[in-house]
Order: sequence, then C-alpha cells, then structure tokens
Amino acid sequence: MENYTHDIPTKILFGKGQIAHLPEILAGYGRRVLLCYGGGSIKKTGLYDEIMTLLKDFTVIECGGIEPNPRISSVERGAKLCREHNVDVILAAGGGSVIDCAKAIAVGTFYEGDLWEMVLTAREGRKALPLVDILTLSATGSEYDGGGVITNPETNEKLGGSYTYPAVSICDPTYTFTVSPYQTAAGSADIMSHVMEGYFAETTDSILSDGIAEALLKTVIKCLPVALKEPDNYAARASLMSASSIACSGIPEYGKKWSGWPCHALEHELSAWYDITHGAGLAILTPRWMRYVLAKDPEQVRPQLARFARNVWGLAGDDEMVLAEQGIAALEKFFADAGLPMTLTELGITDEHFAEMAVHADRGGRLSHSWIPLMPEDSEAILRMCL
Amino acid sequence: MENYTHDIPTKILFGKGQIAHLPEILAGYGRRVLLCYGGGSIKKTGLYDEIMTLLKDFTVIECGGIEPNPRISSVERGAKLCREHNVDVILAAGGGSVIDCAKAIAVGTFYEGDLWEMVLTAREGRKALPLVDILTLSATGSEYDGGGVITNPETNEKLGGSYTYPAVSICDPTYTFTVSPYQTAAGSADIMSHVMEGYFAETTDSILSDGIAEALLKTVIKCLPVALKEPDNYAARASLMSASSIACSGIPEYGKKWSGWPCHALEHELSAWYDITHGAGLAILTPRWMRYVLAKDPEQVRPQLARFARNVWGLAGDDEMVLAEQGIAALEKFFADAGLPMTLTELGITDEHFAEMAVHADRGGRLSHSWIPLMPEDSEAILRMCL
Repeated sequence: MENYTHDIPTKILFGKGQIAHLPEILAGYGRRVLLCYGGGSIKKTGLYDEIMTLLKDFTVIECGGIEPNPRISSVERGAKLCREHNVDVILAAGGGSVIDCAKAIAVGTFYEGDLWEMVLTAREGRKALPLVDILTLSATGSEYDGGGVITNPETNEKLGGSYTYPAVSICDPTYTFTVSPYQTAAGSADIMSHVMEGYFAETTDSILSDGIAEALLKTVIKCLPVALKEPDNYAARASLMSASSIACSGIPEYGKKWSGWPCHALEHELSAWYDITHGAGLAILTPRWMRYVLAKDPEQVRPQLARFARNVWGLAGDDEMVLAEQGIAALEKFFADAGLPMTLTELGITDEHFAEMAVHADRGGRLSHSWIPLMPEDSEAILRMCL
Repeated sequence: MENYTHDIPTKILFGKGQIAHLPEILAGYGRRVLLCYGGGSIKKTGLYDEIMTLLKDFTVIECGGIEPNPRISSVERGAKLCREHNVDVILAAGGGSVIDCAKAIAVGTFYEGDLWEMVLTAREGRKALPLVDILTLSATGSEYDGGGVITNPETNEKLGGSYTYPAVSICDPTYTFTVSPYQTAAGSADIMSHVMEGYFAETTDSILSDGIAEALLKTVIKCLPVALKEPDNYAARASLMSASSIACSGIPEYGKKWSGWPCHALEHELSAWYDITHGAGLAILTPRWMRYVLAKDPEQVRPQLARFARNVWGLAGDDEMVLAEQGIAALEKFFADAGLPMTLTELGITDEHFAEMAVHADRGGRLSHSWIPLMPEDSEAILRMCL
C-alpha cells in the first residue's frame, strides 16, 4: 500500500437544474466571464441560450470553436482574451476538451513566456483564474481533476499535465441526452480506461481501491447499453456522469503504485498524429495491450486479468489463463457491441509513423518504467496488433 | 436518482510518516496551536512526544481529556482556551470524538452565546478556526466530513450537526496498530453502519453508489479479521482507514434519498443515557432494525436485504426472504466473531428509559420520516429486541 494525497477542492453540483446556481457562483468571482465552448453543439441544444439568459447581468467574452483535441492555438487565443478583457472567471461549457483547454487558459493568462513551454513544463500550483464548468459529456473526468491534455499539431505532440482544478463543476446528466451514440460509447471507453489504467498495477493490497474500480467498471458496463438504447434515460446518464468524475479522481488507485497509464501514453500519440477520438483510440488499444503484456509477463499479468474477469465480468473458472483471455474477449465484445471501431485501419491509420510514436510515447521513460515495462519495440508491436 | 452536492475541501495526507508535513501545514495558519486529545493514549503510544518535538517552534496550548462521547463542557473549555490564547489553528490528535469536539471548538471560539445553543442549531457556514487532525482510530469518518456529535449529560442528549471540515487530515495507519481489538471492532462496526445507513434507502437506481457501498462493506469484512489477528498488518489497517474516510463522506449515498440514518438516531440515545461505545451500540442495533423493518414492510425491505446478502456476503439463492434473513445472520455473526457485545443487557442497559428514548430519537420527525417510517412504538420495540 503506497502513500497518497487526496486534495480535490472542486465542488460538484450534480443533477437536474443545477445550472440555476450559475449566476451566484460566478458573481462570487466577478462580472467578467470568458465563456469557452467547442464546435457549437451547445448552440444546437439550447445550453448556450440558457447560459446567456442566466448571465444577462455579466459581461461575457466568447471563446468558441475549441477543438475535440484542444490545440495550443486555442489556449493562446483564450489567454489573450482574458488579458485583454480583464476576465474575472472562466466558464467552460462542454466536454473534457473544452474544460482541459479552459484549465490551460486559466493558467496561461498569468504565464509569462511561450504557452507551449508552459504545456511542456505543466505542474500544479501555478497562478490561475478561477474556473467553473458545465459538463456536457461523460468521459474525461476533467470536471473533477486538475489535469488537461493539449495538442500541438506542428510538432505532432499531445501532452497531459497539471493545470488547475475547477472551483465548481455543474454536472447535469440531462445535458448528455443529446450526445451521439458514438461519442457516448467513446466517452464510456475513456471512463473505463481511466479505471483500468490504475487497476492493473504492481500493488495488489489496495482492497478498497480495487473494489471501487470494479464498481466503476460494472456501472459503465450496465449503463452504457441502456444509454445507447434510451438516450434520455436519466439514471443511466447520471450513473455514467458520476462514474466519469470518480474514475479520473485518483480515488480508484489510491494506495497503488502508478502504473504509467500505458494505453493513454500510446493513444495520445495516435490522437496527436491523426486527431482521432480519444476514447475510440483507447477502446482499440486496451485489449491489445492486455494481450501483449499477458504474453510478455504472464506471471504478473495473469492473476490480475483473471481477477478482472471474475470481479468485473462475473466469469468463473479455475484456469487463470483461460479466465484472463475470456476477460479480454469480454471487454473487446463490449466495445464492439457499443459500435466502437475495433481497428486502427478502420480509422484510416497505417503503420507509417508507428516507430516514431513508440519512441515518443516513452517520453521521460514513462513506458519503459510502467507496470509491465514497454520498450519502443513493444509499443510498436502493440500498435501493429491494432491494425 | 436524487440531486446532490459534493463539497469536501479537506486534504488527506495518507500513509506512513505523513506527520513530517505537520509543521509546514500548521505554519500556514500561524504559530499558536490548540492541541486537542483524549484520555492520554497518544502519550502512551509516543504520538504526543512526536507532535511536541515537531512543534518545538510553536506555542502549544493543551486541551486534553476529551471524552469518548465528547461533552459540551469540553467544547466550552476548548473555545475558552482559543479565545484566551488567541489560537491560530486547532490540531486534533485522536479518533472521531476528539476531532468532533475540535470541530465544535473551532466554531465555538467565534460563537456568541451559549454553546449548547450552538449545538442545537448547528449548521454549515459558521465562522471557524482552521482545523488539522491526526487520525488514530478508523471509525467515524470525522476526518473527511464536516459533522460532529456532542453530548450533554445534564439533558441526556447526544446530537449530531454540521460544524466545519478539517483543512488537512493526516491519516497514518500505523497510529492504529495499538488500538485494542474491542475498539478496532467497534470502529469497524461504525464504518459499516455509515455505509449501511445510506445503502438501505428509497432510491434504488444509484448503481455506482451501491457498488461503492458494497466495496466499502466487503473491505471491512475482509480487513477487520486480519487487523484483529495481526494488529500491525499495514494493508489491513490502511484499508480500514481509507474506508473510514470514504464511508462517511456522502459518496456511497450520492443520488439516493436520505434514509434518516435510523440506527444512528437510536444509538445516539443509548450513548447519551449510558455513555456506551458508539460502534458497539450500532452493532447491536443494526441487525435488530433490519429484522424489524423486514417484518414491517417486506415488500420494500426484502429486495434490498437480498441484494445485501448476494453482493456483500456472496450468498446465493432464489428465495429473497431466505436470502434477506441469511444476510442479517451473516452480519450478526460477523460482529459476534469480532468480539462485539450482542445485547444491551451485556452493557448493563435495561428498558427503563426506552419509551423516552424512542420519542426523543424522532426529534424533528427524523424516524417517522425515515425510509421505513418508525413511530416511537416501533423504535421502542427495536430497542427491546436488543435486550
């Protein structure tokens, strides 16, 4: 059992109609608000109008058009707006990409120097504008953590780092009723990946963390098919939204050694080069990573995958290797049934840049020091398995 | 699924040796520290000396002798010391009783008027001194919530209320190695009760909350026997300590209707009159409450107790009533095997005050509006089942 620090200052207002509190929350910081949003879905759903009506007594400066894999140019644009307009508080309305970008803007506003350098050296504790968000997609957990992932298309880099925690996250499941089946499934794969990345790790005596991780995975397994079938099923959407926040909070891996989050490291390479949906990339990579490390180090991996098969998928049997393989197959089938792509080929990705990606994913020794160490040749092999 | 607010600003430093951070944490608030502790176990274990060595550059004002069911007189004494010595920050070293009392002292320092009146009208948001704690008993969850329970022996009242959240909780499982088997078991019963009070409730579509609740219960069921057999088993003590914090945080009941926490309402009456150990009282009451409400409203209660039997105790069967009864029996056996008393008679309690307790426990309509409503005659019957 490893030491840990739990320090999440974010207040979550969860449930229908919580947006009514928005004016009083923002007024606590000031009257000049930077509104961050994405490609305009909040205009289609009516959320934009709802916000504007609630903020009629505020000065709202808009920063729309934030990309699904948010770019450093959007961070620069937002930070410039905050400085020019003396913004008091940032309001991010959207999914993880918008919230991630808003976090980097919050810090970037005060950062002296090149903002890509800020991303390269991202760390907690830098001065930041207060951030409030309205979550519209259950996926990244950005509403309840301090991290963000920013992309630089010029260098083909997509880098995660620590910026700032939201002061308040408004989590109303009804805002996810209009999320497409594909994005719902990809978001769920992201939630599951956040849990699985911590679940498979060296330390195995964190009983509570394992139990919470399994509860999160079983929640997604139960609720995603319901949400796909009945997009406005409140309980299913609400359970996915709660799971999103807790999955990426650190709680499911408290007491465990950091595994290195290998699938995230590899997926960030894919998104950096090909701008694919993060959750879809994770759904393709995760079962392949499982098969690869099971073959590479069966002694370490087999018991953990067997536990996964038993406790998450309810499978039974005495042969741990058979169970492990059945667990992987169950995960793969679950993603396929949810309509997610199962190969990189389907996404138009070839092996052209795999060698470069494999080297870059090990930045800082992240993969070569992960739970089951992956050298660049291992990572390249995993990427090839995804074709 | 009900709306909820998650707002716990407490930072937890978890694990061996985290006390090393104490001076820098306290220095953030000032140099004048009120040290709250209980009957002196921290002197026996060496924790007192460790604190005093670390705080050699601070002015430490002592407030020892806080009772296991902390009394209003201790709150008054502590608040007086804070005012007289211009205290900057309170340090509570102990279990839930010491931390609860320190919370009331933190608010009481600024409260103008009678402090029992403050207890009677306890609510969040009152001005308070900052509070740091060092947890020495896994039980109440006071290290990660804003509540406290204060007793008035003159009026035979023991009342829970909201005071203030700890700013920082230092949770080092090694400080619980010396906790007696009896207190270890009673603390575990308290943890389980916090989970079960929320688990059995009207709302049944909070899948994630139910899963987290079951993970918490299974953690205690697995780790308490280990901690009793090997008091210095770090992983077991650490799992119980993590479970303590999360059990009472609200997380296991997010999205559920408040059940009324009936066993706590009744136990507070027992402790108020007889000063018994809170967890022991809960271990006696809970199975009786289960049997009583199962008979009173089988349609509501049977499916939930059957789920408890299946998911928590791993029992199987098709007859829900049989399963429900087996689940209650499993809980009762677990408490008995841990060495907890199984009747109030063993604690020297008679039915002398039951009628009065039953009426008082319904203060504010708490029990008559609980999940399965309990009129005073119901509560009295449950208390009689405990003899």
